Amino acid sequence: MARKIMKVNGVERRIIVSAEESLANVLRRQLGLTGTKIGCGEGQCGCCNVILDGKLVRSCVTRMEKVPDGASVTTIEGIGTPDNPHPIQLAWAAHGAAQCGFCTPGFVVSTKALLDRNQNPSRDDVREWFQTHRNACRCTGYKMIVDAVMDGAKVLQGKMRAADLEFKMPADGRIWGTNYPRPSAMYKATGTWDFGADLALKMPADTLRLALVQAKVSHAKILSIDTSEAQKMPGVFKVITHKDVKGKNRINRVLSFPGNRGDGWDRPILCDEKVFQYGDAVAIVAADTEAQAKAAAEKVKVNFDALPAYMSAPAAMAEDAMEIHPGTPNIFYVQKLAKGKETKPVFEKAAHVVDGEFYVGRQPHLPMEPDCGLAYWDGGKLYIQSKSIALNLHRAMIADGVGIAIDDLHFIQNNAGGDFGYKASPTLEALLAVAATATGRPVSLVYDYHQQMTYTGKRSPFWMKIRLAADKEGKLLGMETDYSIDHGPYSELGDLVTLRGVQFMGAGYDIPNIRGEGRVVSTNHSWGAPFRAFGSPQSEFASESLMDMLAEKMGMDPLELRYKNCYRKGSTTPSGQDPEVYSLPEMFDILRPKYQQALKRAKANSTSEKKCGVGISIGIYGAGTDGPDTSNAAVELNPDGGVTLYDTWEDHGQGADIGALGTAHEALRPLGLPPQKIRRYANDTSKCPDSNLAAGSRSQYITGRAIKAACDSLTQAMRKPDGGFRTYDEMVKGNLPLKYTGTYTSPGTPVDANGQGSPFTNYMYALFMSEVSVEMKSGKTTVDKMTMIADVGVVNNKLVVDGQLYGGMAQGIGLALSEEFEDIHKHSTLAGAGFPYIKSIPDNMEIIYVETPRPLGPFGASGVGELPLTSPHAAVINAINNACGVRIKGLPALPEKVLGELKKKK
Amino acid sequence: MARKIMKVNGVERRIIVSAEESLANVLRRQLGLTGTKIGCGEGQCGCCNVILDGKLVRSCVTRMEKVPDGASVTTIEGIGTPDNPHPIQLAWAAHGAAQCGFCTPGFVVSTKALLDRNQNPSRDDVREWFQTHRNACRCTGYKMIVDAVMDGAKVLQGKMRAADLEFKMPADGRIWGTNYPRPSAMYKATGTWDFGADLALKMPADTLRLALVQAKVSHAKILSIDTSEAQKMPGVFKVITHKDVKGKNRINRVLSFPGNRGDGWDRPILCDEKVFQYGDAVAIVAADTEAQAKAAAEKVKVNFDALPAYMSAPAAMAEDAMEIHPGTPNIFYVQKLAKGKETKPVFEKAAHVVDGEFYVGRQPHLPMEPDCGLAYWDGGKLYIQSKSIALNLHRAMIADGVGIAIDDLHFIQNNAGGDFGYKASPTLEALLAVAATATGRPVSLVYDYHQQMTYTGKRSPFWMKIRLAADKEGKLLGMETDYSIDHGPYSELGDLVTLRGVQFMGAGYDIPNIRGEGRVVSTNHSWGAPFRAFGSPQSEFASESLMDMLAEKMGMDPLELRYKNCYRKGSTTPSGQDPEVYSLPEMFDILRPKYQQALKRAKANSTSEKKCGVGISIGIYGAGTDGPDTSNAAVELNPDGGVTLYDTWEDHGQGADIGALGTAHEALRPLGLPPQKIRRYANDTSKCPDSNLAAGSRSQYITGRAIKAACDSLTQAMRKPDGGFRTYDEMVKGNLPLKYTGTYTSPGTPVDANGQGSPFTNYMYALFMSEVSVEMKSGKTTVDKMTMIADVGVVNNKLVVDGQLYGGMAQGIGLALSEEFEDIHKHSTLAGAGFPYIKSIPDNMEIIYVETPRPLGPFGASGVGELPLTSPHAAVINAINNACGVRIKGLPALPEKVLGELKKKK
Repeated sequence: MARKIMKVNGVERRIIVSAEESLANVLRRQLGLTGTKIGCGEGQCGCCNVILDGKLVRSCVTRMEKVPDGASVTTIEGIGTPDNPHPIQLAWAAHGAAQCGFCTPGFVVSTKALLDRNQNPSRDDVREWFQTHRNACRCTGYKMIVDAVMDGAKVLQGKMRAADLEFKMPADGRIWGTNYPRPSAMYKATGTWDFGADLALKMPADTLRLALVQAKVSHAKILSIDTSEAQKMPGVFKVITHKDVKGKNRINRVLSFPGNRGDGWDRPILCDEKVFQYGDAVAIVAADTEAQAKAAAEKVKVNFDALPAYMSAPAAMAEDAMEIHPGTPNIFYVQKLAKGKETKPVFEKAAHVVDGEFYVGRQPHLPMEPDCGLAYWDGGKLYIQSKSIALNLHRAMIADGVGIAIDDLHFIQNNAGGDFGYKASPTLEALLAVAATATGRPVSLVYDYHQQMTYTGKRSPFWMKIRLAADKEGKLLGMETDYSIDHGPYSELGDLVTLRGVQFMGAGYDIPNIRGEGRVVSTNHSWGAPFRAFGSPQSEFASESLMDMLAEKMGMDPLELRYKNCYRKGSTTPSGQDPEVYSLPEMFDILRPKYQQALKRAKANSTSEKKCGVGISIGIYGAGTDGPDTSNAAVELNPDGGVTLYDTWEDHGQGADIGALGTAHEALRPLGLPPQKIRRYANDTSKCPDSNLAAGSRSQYITGRAIKAACDSLTQAMRKPDGGFRTYDEMVKGNLPLKYTGTYTSPGTPVDANGQGSPFTNYMYALFMSEVSVEMKSGKTTVDKMTMIADVGVVNNKLVVDGQLYGGMAQGIGLALSEEFEDIHKHSTLAGAGFPYIKSIPDNMEIIYVETPRPLGPFGASGVGELPLTSPHAAVINAINNACGVRIKGLPALPEKVLGELKKKK
Repeated sequence: MARKIMKVNGVERRIIVSAEESLANVLRRQLGLTGTKIGCGEGQCGCCNVILDGKLVRSCVTRMEKVPDGASVTTIEGIGTPDNPHPIQLAWAAHGAAQCGFCTPGFVVSTKALLDRNQNPSRDDVREWFQTHRNACRCTGYKMIVDAVMDGAKVLQGKMRAADLEFKMPADGRIWGTNYPRPSAMYKATGTWDFGADLALKMPADTLRLALVQAKVSHAKILSIDTSEAQKMPGVFKVITHKDVKGKNRINRVLSFPGNRGDGWDRPILCDEKVFQYGDAVAIVAADTEAQAKAAAEKVKVNFDALPAYMSAPAAMAEDAMEIHPGTPNIFYVQKLAKGKETKPVFEKAAHVVDGEFYVGRQPHLPMEPDCGLAYWDGGKLYIQSKSIALNLHRAMIADGVGIAIDDLHFIQNNAGGDFGYKASPTLEALLAVAATATGRPVSLVYDYHQQMTYTGKRSPFWMKIRLAADKEGKLLGMETDYSIDHGPYSELGDLVTLRGVQFMGAGYDIPNIRGEGRVVSTNHSWGAPFRAFGSPQSEFASESLMDMLAEKMGMDPLELRYKNCYRKGSTTPSGQDPEVYSLPEMFDILRPKYQQALKRAKANSTSEKKCGVGISIGIYGAGTDGPDTSNAAVELNPDGGVTLYDTWEDHGQGADIGALGTAHEALRPLGLPPQKIRRYANDTSKCPDSNLAAGSRSQYITGRAIKAACDSLTQAMRKPDGGFRTYDEMVKGNLPLKYTGTYTSPGTPVDANGQGSPFTNYMYALFMSEVSVEMKSGKTTVDKMTMIADVGVVNNKLVVDGQLYGGMAQGIGLALSEEFEDIHKHSTLAGAGFPYIKSIPDNMEIIYVETPRPLGPFGASGVGELPLTSPHAAVINAINNACGVRIKGLPALPEKVLGELKKKK
């Protein structure tokens, strides 16, 4: 402990600190400056950037002993406020540079430090700066961030007025289809948007802080748990084990397909008999401070009897493998596909047949914000606040397990950092519920990054064998698929991801005859969780690689092969469904000249040291959940003539706020309300109608329709015989209801046992083109440009949709080239897992919209979020092949892997 | 617990709160917005004012259940920042409206709320607003606050430019004698000045929070202390009793006069055998949270055996009274005075003799900030941070008691609210040291207002008999005094306050022959602590009342009687000393015409319902401690050519920051440094030379001289043969020291056993004139105007000295009319103790300076702080007598007391 005098944001603060404490913790915990975020906690993400005596530092790894007495510190709070923003912050909002906003304070502070020393940087200077200072963003793909920095700099240079960065309302009063900034933009740009860990610090003083006792083995029997020493540690209120769990102590899978061999109760909340994966929670310590809880957690003694750990699908499928969940076979679900005729004769007669074996691995979500949550009792009901993007589903999944009647259990979503799907699976919610129940006190739990990596779900790896048959002109005749999926030990959504294999292998092409089979396997690696584009990045990687291989075999241009086979009137999807629109040919026509120029560029830029190439892919995903998909929303007229929307369109940075606002504003146009008068109370199951989860690109379509329905009901009720609208007072006087609920159910049909049906009533379509350079000496691939032709229907908000597409492509590049989570230790940090920093993502990304209005979408919109990660990695891998003739079939295409293939070729 | 969504300073916050929690605590503890201060904690002081949905509320009594969901809250942090202040805040700095700054956020927020609804208020509107909203200030006397509001309003109305409120550096570059705002001004005006309770919230997470187990009896034996149940309470780390105290468990009085009958070890740290006064600490609970500590403190069982409680000096002096400290007589010190000839014959022969018995009671300090502090171990040394204004003295007072070698014990002053002297006595410092030692952890303790009132020292009541003899022209011939002092149970400074009686009864007048005796008595009421003007408000009340009585008896004008007798060349003080300057006649000459006008006004304004009157008094106090008074300071040359000052001139709102800066800036004028380059590291005994305590108006004089000496040494060392000055680099190159210590010892001599000597080498002189109205029906007195002719030598900083004088006079009005602390329960709140709100203090206060340069003062300055509270209350009481012929001899002159006297007269 020592006294430290620092000037923080222009204010002299004289505080007592521990020399070993990080500057980030001192700022956040002692000074309440929670604008500084802690992401990775080990200096790899820049979320905690502050300016210390003029120098940009990562405050999470800056110990207080290194902070000089009298030091001057600038945090995000010292740069600007929502009422008085800095030009950088104005530019951030104007360019949609903040999606989830978790990295934003670090970027804004970093930008301030850059512009303090170079007011006129080039885009490359900006990228170099962010690379050097490790500013990591997982949402945006960086481009809009650089756009914002350039405009912020212009204002500081006097080349642009700050006012030019403010949104100008169009003459027609519509914000639909514009660059209207999302309502949370300025809060995010000023660091005033409280995330879960911030909120945890703002809890009442009697909140207990939780620490987990976790398994460091992947598969074992639990022989004993001894909490006696831990219970005596300072500040400990209670050490909680499975014995304290009031319910079934299992997560309920809830969603399940017929044919699933497991009973759906395979995931323990607090392990009792066994642990199934590294990180599984065995006990929870609840103490007054986080440090006390962690110290006591170290004192809990767990006696394990190690069992063989099956760390991949093939290992768990081996003859001699034991059942991970005794009584349930490790292969717990099989999905078949049979479309058209038997494929064997088709293949026998086909002019061209290609096959391949492909692997897409356990892509980690790599969010900037580690998982976190809190829980408290209010009026006899338990409230859980977390990053959940499936509030009502998670309620149902944990209620029985924690022993609370579902009506007494409510979920509220915290302001949440981008999760990219892992939060469609519950993480710590049941642990919070157990702790709040066992202690009767408010509780909070914040993961560190190691916990984030090791104790949340991951993308399920696919091992895929696939064959294509074509006639001599290249018209596809048939496809055969066979794949196995590693889903980790917990079966949640394992059947669904298996179904995605039959839905999206070969998607985009009219393939009359298909036979396929996929199976999902329990293992002892990380549990499988949804990840953006769920199942399609694996599936489409296989078919899009194979399409290129077919073209190569035939000596045909891969674009023209795809063009020949893509959906047109009369085509059906792999599930036998008629696409709702047929925009692919038009999209190819737009791409073709760009593709030809790209090929020329690649040729011109190739040298003996560096080979350039171009690759393309089709990306397709369904918007919505399979079959009928229902959403609810409500709208209420306020005394001031404005309205309040109620919904559970969860926001994980994708832009639910502007999604809901844009849709409602368009629906309420007859009333002529300014956007500011459309308020929103969202993501609280106790007060909002159930809009179901925010995943599968369903919300803009399904919840958008529910919002529109609610708004239509309100305007209808307000309409007077003369065509005008009743005021609030007139509604009250007329005894008319003020609140209207809207419900929408999509008219889809689930697939049958052969994978046939019309599960999605809206799809999204993309063409990706990747231009790469491969360094021949090292095998290192650089993506020089990404181009995306996108049909997401009519665009609600340009900033948000641009941001989704850029960001998704960036994740595709990471998936293609660097990201993996195989080795639990080596890959459990951001950098170790191959996180793509700014220089891994091209500044040159181009998006061209083909806005084909969707008949069922609200105002013609479809979904967005999954599309950009369906197959961009396939385009990258195809480009590598185009550049240097190397076909990478297992991701990621790390330099050593490419180099190995190059060496084989010689 | 419930979720609450509030827009706080323009930012939407979604937090979890307890319905019973106060808004103030939620803002401070959960949102980290410590600009909102908690003073009284019961809605009587307005320090916690915030704007809630447009309405000014006292947030300490606003429960969260009363805060609507979606409410909008503006705190001081939302009004402006040091870098971007609101015009109100600029005006606050320009007008010196913040002294200690504790009430400032509440006032600024209140002003914002006022100006939001009335941009053009009159001064009376402003006063009415602050009265209605209970904005209480103890430092300023309110006038400069109203000045600031008026100018802030002008800027908002566009009648003044904000820039006009900024300090303009004079052409000669001097800030000495100007309105240069104190360095802390803008921090205070923006709520960014962290006080101790704020700092406590900013401590590291492993800090233990303390709660006291306190006696609720005034005098008792302790039979047993049972901590077993408390020790088991949640979050409790340790329950500490006297058994855990490593040292002597007694405060060491340290300063002591020969003849003091006590051994100086009478004050227990944690009571062991006895409790001596209500509130005495018996145990300390150290727990993780304050609520836990308080809950556990309730469970400590203390078994008392009650003893007779002596609640006044007369009671404790009674024949049958037991010794409160067995072995020490209750009368523990007697002070004699013998000046000139025996007085008995003088009185026998005198033409005029008057006598009277007077009582000035236990005036409570009534600070806005309750006592607070923290302690922590750093490198084997214990650091205590508190409001102490006597850092090195308190070190010495507690070291042996807590069992820590003095070199291992350091004190640092927190930013401290005005204490007006009570913090010259240690309060919680030893408790903090004991707790930090017993736990090995950082600790903090924050009093609530009841603790502030009942467990800190108070002004020592004086019971005084006094006689004056004069010749037939009114020339004073002699004085006799006899007085007894209630000093509570602890003897600290009890002998010194007794000495003050003989020094200041009759001060200002040339009285050739004096005999007097005073005695100080142990009682079981609150311990006696210094309070501004220490001893003189009691002493001078007696002599200034009696002078009026003499004038009345003689039919002489009270001003002329004083004028005739005041110090002139050849006069001596009661201690037989030659005054260092003779400014009183000049001051009377300035006052006389104003006095005559005031008398006319009083006559003109009197009616049968309301009688108006005018009263005057002389006020005198010594600047410094008795005898030789030493101070040290240092100054160090910095690499940038600026300097850093090191001193322990403690700041309790009086303006040590600008006092030190103004003095150093003047001393360093040869170097031509701008004020911004004079830094200051102060009030840390581990790093600063000992400047002794900041009390007795000593600092500007004694420490000012030490600062000047240090600065002179530096400039001398820097001076080059050619008359120019060496740069930092030249000093380093020349191997010249960079840091210089200055020491000054005043050439005073302590008084002898007869009270004779030259204890003070600088005095301060004042004339007070009070104009009052007395409501005949109720006896209620209103002070309509105060005038002060002040000679504090040459003024360093006008804003600060004005503020001291206005504020001291306001406390004098409180002392005269309302303040008391007799009934421990009734008087233990601000309002209950008679706190003077704005409408009790006249807006019409006039100060006229007679700047007689002091030969020994730095640049001619004397002291300031005590002067305005020496005798303004005597002027008020004299004015009451002038108005309605009622002579109040025991303070306060509550309406019922005046009414009683009026009735007696009839």
